[in-house]
Amino acid sequence: MTHLHILSADEEIYRAMLAKENLPDLIIDDQLGESCEIILGEPSRIHDKIADLPNLRWIQSTWAGVEPLLNPALRRDYKLTNARGIFGELMSEYVFAYLLAHERRIFARAEAQKNKIWDGSLTGTIRGKTIGLIGVGTIGAEMARTAKFFGLTVRGYTRQSEDCPDVDHYYHGEELLEFANELDYLVNVAPNTKETRKIIGADLLAALPARAVLINVGRGPAVDESALLQALNEKKIASAVLDVFEKEPLPTEHPFWTTPNLTMTYHTSGPSFPSKFIQIFIENYRLYKEDKPLKYQINFERGY
Amino acid sequence: MTHLHILSADEEIYRAMLAKENLPDLIIDDQLGESCEIILGEPSRIHDKIADLPNLRWIQSTWAGVEPLLNPALRRDYKLTNARGIFGELMSEYVFAYLLAHERRIFARAEAQKNKIWDGSLTGTIRGKTIGLIGVGTIGAEMARTAKFFGLTVRGYTRQSEDCPDVDHYYHGEELLEFANELDYLVNVAPNTKETRKIIGADLLAALPARAVLINVGRGPAVDESALLQALNEKKIASAVLDVFEKEPLPTEHPFWTTPNLTMTYHTSGPSFPSKFIQIFIENYRLYKEDKPLKYQINFERGY
Repeated sequence: MTHLHILSADEEIYRAMLAKENLPDLIIDDQLGESCEIILGEPSRIHDKIADLPNLRWIQSTWAGVEPLLNPALRRDYKLTNARGIFGELMSEYVFAYLLAHERRIFARAEAQKNKIWDGSLTGTIRGKTIGLIGVGTIGAEMARTAKFFGLTVRGYTRQSEDCPDVDHYYHGEELLEFANELDYLVNVAPNTKETRKIIGADLLAALPARAVLINVGRGPAVDESALLQALNEKKIASAVLDVFEKEPLPTEHPFWTTPNLTMTYHTSGPSFPSKFIQIFIENYRLYKEDKPLKYQINFERGY
Repeated sequence: MTHLHILSADEEIYRAMLAKENLPDLIIDDQLGESCEIILGEPSRIHDKIADLPNLRWIQSTWAGVEPLLNPALRRDYKLTNARGIFGELMSEYVFAYLLAHERRIFARAEAQKNKIWDGSLTGTIRGKTIGLIGVGTIGAEMARTAKFFGLTVRGYTRQSEDCPDVDHYYHGEELLEFANELDYLVNVAPNTKETRKIIGADLLAALPARAVLINVGRGPAVDESALLQALNEKKIASAVLDVFEKEPLPTEHPFWTTPNLTMTYHTSGPSFPSKFIQIFIENYRLYKEDKPLKYQINFERGY
């Protein structure tokens, strides 16, 4: 029998779903112990519990981000898989919700309503604008697809991949500032790696035009927070929408809470709906039992 | 020579654009007089100036809506054409801006930021929802196309046409309440006709589920304002986004300004950008000079 333990805020939901599926040989253990072969759950709940599990062979993360398990001090003698393919559509909705809100001035129009002012000022449009994506994996590719649907030009900044048909121009390595030049929207969707840490810093922000909107749905450490604060306070860019932060929840005393033209969304851009996620686990469990390569396996060195 | 007079808020822009085009035989008159054969402009600026023009043959409206010229007391011995095909993309952006804002709770999240509350509550999605369009002309068709892109089911309520491939189910005539049943979003894009006047009334609103969002980008008279007020105050529907009103600008004392869950946008959903509009006039002018049928001609009886 194959022993699974669940370490998730949605444990009860996953238990109920898996009970219905009747997966072959699967036993869900209430306690985490010697027999445990598979763990399913959130990396933040798992990372400090894996040292003494002799039979651990696979951890399936319910999240895309697996940073807590990438700490070099932790063991790496098991297969780590993350959740992919289920966030792209939701995160793309998020990005376009905020880009459309920006162009259609929906906060300003709501303010006008409070003041009973008939604000017939001309609206903007996302059509014809240029969006730049830092990171074009499955999530970035869905954003690129949506951007093309709405008539935008799409730039992609990637380590080396150039395989998304909806990206019009690719940039790599030292072409970061060229990539930023004349962008209307800059969206970070990259995982947290050495290369992306503080990639959104003073240089990149200075290379953007004053009309630019920054959206960070990737990882908090990608943003140099003090450089961004300065850029917003000095109106070097138009606005920023941040879903992720260096430290979460963001401390109450952090200046982001009250920075003008900074919108915060509390790590909600890509919720992990259990009903979508469980399909990944089921598919991977079948592959696991057949001793085949698992989907979405993480390379510990590369970090994604 | 063919004499044109311009009656538009954007007269200077149109003059400059037409000067560049050098259209054959065209003279733009500064004054409106006997020689005037064509008028280009906003119906609200035109309707009270056409009685004494012996040579008037064609009016090209810069708007989609031509109600001021449909008054039965006015002459109808000329060709009336409106602007079409240039509003669909912008108005579709508007509709999806507000639907995404609703699902992603962007006003609530902004409020949380003011109060420094880390609001990690789960987000919604437009994917999988059902949208109903009253009116599926060129504008409605673009909304249907966008809805399919985002994975929605699309219903269309039309007089008789069924020619949009992105509509999953069509409804006509007395099927209005069936059309409304279990709709997540109801969007009115219909022109103002006898049939659409107060179509969004107590019966239709009662047939919608409590989660429904109403968006009116068609014409103000389509909404029975007191029925909508009651539905919102009694929470029979979730919210309404209104771009058009029975009377515009909306009088300051109108209860809509302060009705909960009612968002107003001051007739800005489909701005008429002169650079887009002028292409319609240029094409129609060429057809006019060749004595061919004009594009987008209005049927005075039908009203669109």
